[in-house]
Amino acid sequence: MKISVVGMGRVGGATAFALVARGIPHELVLVGRTKERTVGDAFDLLHASALVRPMRVVAGDAADTAASDVVILAVSAAADDVAGGRAAHAEANARLLREIVPPLAEASPSAVFLVMTNPVDVCTYVTLKASGLPPGRVLGTGTLLDTMRFRSLLSRETGINAQDVRAYILGEHGETQFPALSVASAGGVRFEPRDSTVRAFAEEARQGGHLVARSKGYTNYAVALAATSICEAVADDARTVLPVSTLVDGYKGLGDVCLSLPCVVGRQGVERILAIDLDDDETALLHQSAAAIRAGIDRVEAAGLNPSARG
Amino acid sequence: MKISVVGMGRVGGATAFALVARGIPHELVLVGRTKERTVGDAFDLLHASALVRPMRVVAGDAADTAASDVVILAVSAAADDVAGGRAAHAEANARLLREIVPPLAEASPSAVFLVMTNPVDVCTYVTLKASGLPPGRVLGTGTLLDTMRFRSLLSRETGINAQDVRAYILGEHGETQFPALSVASAGGVRFEPRDSTVRAFAEEARQGGHLVARSKGYTNYAVALAATSICEAVADDARTVLPVSTLVDGYKGLGDVCLSLPCVVGRQGVERILAIDLDDDETALLHQSAAAIRAGIDRVEAAGLNPSARG
Amino acid sequence: MKISVVGMGRVGGATAFALVARGIPHELVLVGRTKERTVGDAFDLLHASALVRPMRVVAGDAADTAASDVVILAVSAAADDVAGGRAAHAEANARLLREIVPPLAEASPSAVFLVMTNPVDVCTYVTLKASGLPPGRVLGTGTLLDTMRFRSLLSRETGINAQDVRAYILGEHGETQFPALSVASAGGVRFEPRDSTVRAFAEEARQGGHLVARSKGYTNYAVALAATSICEAVADDARTVLPVSTLVDGYKGLGDVCLSLPCVVGRQGVERILAIDLDDDETALLHQSAAAIRAGIDRVEAAGLNPSARG
Amino acid sequence: MKISVVGMGRVGGATAFALVARGIPHELVLVGRTKERTVGDAFDLLHASALVRPMRVVAGDAADTAASDVVILAVSAAADDVAGGRAAHAEANARLLREIVPPLAEASPSAVFLVMTNPVDVCTYVTLKASGLPPGRVLGTGTLLDTMRFRSLLSRETGINAQDVRAYILGEHGETQFPALSVASAGGVRFEPRDSTVRAFAEEARQGGHLVARSKGYTNYAVALAATSICEAVADDARTVLPVSTLVDGYKGLGDVCLSLPCVVGRQGVERILAIDLDDDETALLHQSAAAIRAGIDRVEAAGLNPSARG
Repeated sequence: MKISVVGMGRVGGATAFALVARGIPHELVLVGRTKERTVGDAFDLLHASALVRPMRVVAGDAADTAASDVVILAVSAAADDVAGGRAAHAEANARLLREIVPPLAEASPSAVFLVMTNPVDVCTYVTLKASGLPPGRVLGTGTLLDTMRFRSLLSRETGINAQDVRAYILGEHGETQFPALSVASAGGVRFEPRDSTVRAFAEEARQGGHLVARSKGYTNYAVALAATSICEAVADDARTVLPVSTLVDGYKGLGDVCLSLPCVVGRQGVERILAIDLDDDETALLHQSAAAIRAGIDRVEAAGLNPSARG
Repeated sequence: MKISVVGMGRVGGATAFALVARGIPHELVLVGRTKERTVGDAFDLLHASALVRPMRVVAGDAADTAASDVVILAVSAAADDVAGGRAAHAEANARLLREIVPPLAEASPSAVFLVMTNPVDVCTYVTLKASGLPPGRVLGTGTLLDTMRFRSLLSRETGINAQDVRAYILGEHGETQFPALSVASAGGVRFEPRDSTVRAFAEEARQGGHLVARSKGYTNYAVALAATSICEAVADDARTVLPVSTLVDGYKGLGDVCLSLPCVVGRQGVERILAIDLDDDETALLHQSAAAIRAGIDRVEAAGLNPSARG
Repeated sequence: MKISVVGMGRVGGATAFALVARGIPHELVLVGRTKERTVGDAFDLLHASALVRPMRVVAGDAADTAASDVVILAVSAAADDVAGGRAAHAEANARLLREIVPPLAEASPSAVFLVMTNPVDVCTYVTLKASGLPPGRVLGTGTLLDTMRFRSLLSRETGINAQDVRAYILGEHGETQFPALSVASAGGVRFEPRDSTVRAFAEEARQGGHLVARSKGYTNYAVALAATSICEAVADDARTVLPVSTLVDGYKGLGDVCLSLPCVVGRQGVERILAIDLDDDETALLHQSAAAIRAGIDRVEAAGLNPSARG
Repeated sequence: MKISVVGMGRVGGATAFALVARGIPHELVLVGRTKERTVGDAFDLLHASALVRPMRVVAGDAADTAASDVVILAVSAAADDVAGGRAAHAEANARLLREIVPPLAEASPSAVFLVMTNPVDVCTYVTLKASGLPPGRVLGTGTLLDTMRFRSLLSRETGINAQDVRAYILGEHGETQFPALSVASAGGVRFEPRDSTVRAFAEEARQGGHLVARSKGYTNYAVALAATSICEAVADDARTVLPVSTLVDGYKGLGDVCLSLPCVVGRQGVERILAIDLDDDETALLHQSAAAIRAGIDRVEAAGLNPSARG
């Protein structure tokens, strides 16, 4: 399994490290903004791999990623491009992806592209369009991270292993996300959708990123392990069910938007989107989430058509 | 983690081998009917462990099992004690357990006792009573095996990882078992309880043991891995939800019987029985299963009170 | 990774089970003498895999093994073919391999063929010739098993992890095997070649198989885990150093014989034979071992030329 | 296994993350200089653990570390204490350890203390003295990191798995370190001590840290995985041979100094120092290394006696 990590900031770096620590790739290519720093990370990770498994680790550029099995996009536009807040950051990241994705997709036409760049749903959409790849082969970490947060809270509360807590956060990896409580259960016991503790945990999960980011200035460990688990599902063709951001077109009236639903993830990326049994309230929340993401997509597309808008 | 395997026939042998292959115990004590043969297995497994992890493997007797963390009971009465069919076999196994369990429980008062001997629900009950241990610390492999069979069929049909297929076979590990279809789901998608394919798989799972036994004369691999997974949950205090045979007293009107319900399994054995949301039909089937097992318990208890009945 | 196990007796069965327990293959094909029994094993292992990883497990014939990555040969001639003792058994096994290997090699021209059939060195040679494959792609479990036995004894004596005990048993998997004590060490500390304890352990390792076989009638667990470790090295392209039986032609004057030397094992099978620094005594023992195996090869080849000799 | 990580900078953070990614602790306590930031790391890691195993992760202080099985010291004096270069940094770190270790040792009297703070040999010595613990229970990552670098280079050159390259860098984790080439081998083949390529790799390993640090400003991934592997050896009581910094008193005339020799690492920390067969040149280099470290110890002890010297 050849994996390339494009973008070696805090998120890309933690992801590359987790991939090495869990011994997933045979070959790991790191593409960073600053070549010298990336060379340092590559050597550090090569040394680390000596305790895990034989692995080639190199710092490279788009050409070195050729024939990757997975390409991880963890790029983020530099701070000086992103004055103007969240929307400007989205536009800058979209521009960056539109620029770097086509040569990466050309170099690895059989790869699964895994998007970590935020806003992840918009960026997954932009990557899909820029890559020209089939929809299943481009996915974003999406609400897998929020789901992990929700499950870790429910696990602590119930004393049940988080893997056995089958509860999903769906929709946008962002403000409009929602818990699919009508189908949540643990060991065959349904969670009560109106239970105030469960609702409080869902809210805590939604706030989890803010909490971590406020405390340490950013989040990286959990999302890095989310990406690593997705890579494991691809590497093992495990057909694991994971809530990841994927193109949804037709499900419950949604069209042409990327958001998170439970997906079967295997060697070909998203092999199937599961037709989850949401109730009416949840379906309404899903539509709200889709609308919010669609608005984000429209904004970055409009900005893309009018490049002079760029700072 | 010190594990003792008592009974080194085909099931006990495969279980000991799986424990070594997965590197679970630090110390493994094998207690077999024929000491010489068991010494051979112990050396064979010790040699095997050289490729896995440091491990002490010895052939011993009840005294050598002292201070075990898990004691696995895989004994089976010898064929010449069991003329008279299934009921006679149950009585012979119950007699055997009543004889060997008290010294084992005395030697390892903090252990989890894991029963594999068939009929497993009756034998779990007999072991619990003979051991004097708290109910959570005695459990049987129960319908975990049937659940694995059911999930492997559903996994093949749906293309979803068996770990993500949350469907349980419950009740008796035997004829009266039933699938808890009203709470079965995969990735948030419920299985349709009346779906004929799903029902056919449940029936195929129920017949799975017969099929394997008819083909090869016995079953051992799957049940050995079931026992190994239970040991892993105990070793890691993983609080994994597994359908295992445990004393049920009070749940849905059931009393003083061992059968399989989804349980949280950790360092202390069954840490909690989950109050699964069965529908009325399933609840009726659960009561039928309990009645069948209770009748089996009554039979072996009656036979136990009248030892002269023994062949 | 598609693995086929041909021969589902005690050794092949234990190997298939260890492969499932350690989650190595994606697809496992079992080829047994008795189709019905093999179907039972396949279902039992499929059920077992539900707790490990998605896996296809089927009972099949040579055609079903097509495009395997590893083909494991664990066949053994039936007892009624082998009256006449060890030499007759070798001849019968050689005949069997000459018959079954060509279609297997044709069906899986890129596979690594792993020979477990005894006498393993002779059978590795016969398989190599019958397959027409490049030498590196046919290997036998050889003295890996004896090395495990030796290391487990040294590990227990020294309190050092067996993986850190770098001591090899080389030559024939049989009477003429010898410990390469002049290069044995643990953590940079050399074992003293004339040390009587170490020599006693080497002798105990040589007798280990007899001991286990006398006790339980056969040996299977350790050799099954040896084969499993070789499969792991191939699957991960791990370039692990393992003493396995391989064609030696030219090393230290040896020619056209299969025996065990430390080999680098990866995706292509034996990728390199290491030119180990044996002293003069050890080199003499290696030549004795080669001569004994060569005589065995000559015998089965002579018998092969004269098929009327067959029982 | 309860593990506490004291010091949550780049090294401590990467170590905590690797511990979670590899699923080693049941309970992880993080003690950082800035409580708020550490709370962020704890939540981020707790969320990450949802994909690995049940784990308690908390930000705490010395009291929360009570009854740890392993205490990892990854503290480093703040930059403004360390003007004056390397020696001043050593003194500042030694002062910090003298202050924080006694309450930690009191809180976890049965723990293994693992020192990552640089200069690691001097700091291991200071920790040992400040803790009052038996020598085996205090160890430093030492030249395990340099050994990993050396082996990764030799592995790439020879095409042999780094785990099979039995070559050690010993002595100081610093300028005076040296490769123990007279006992280095791979698969029974000795490396030629005068081989210029091997010597160049040893020099490259020695420079490896500088190279990484120059490129990215610091090193963290490889040393974090080194610490993680030591924790695994302790958790599994694996008796693995690892070159770690430990008190050496009596070996080859060395006295009262901490430096790296191959050690057997298990549940009790350093269970045995191996009496490695160094040649005369290497023994001389070992003495030079010991003298350099001893001088460092003397310096920080002198500074400790005269606290007014503090900046």
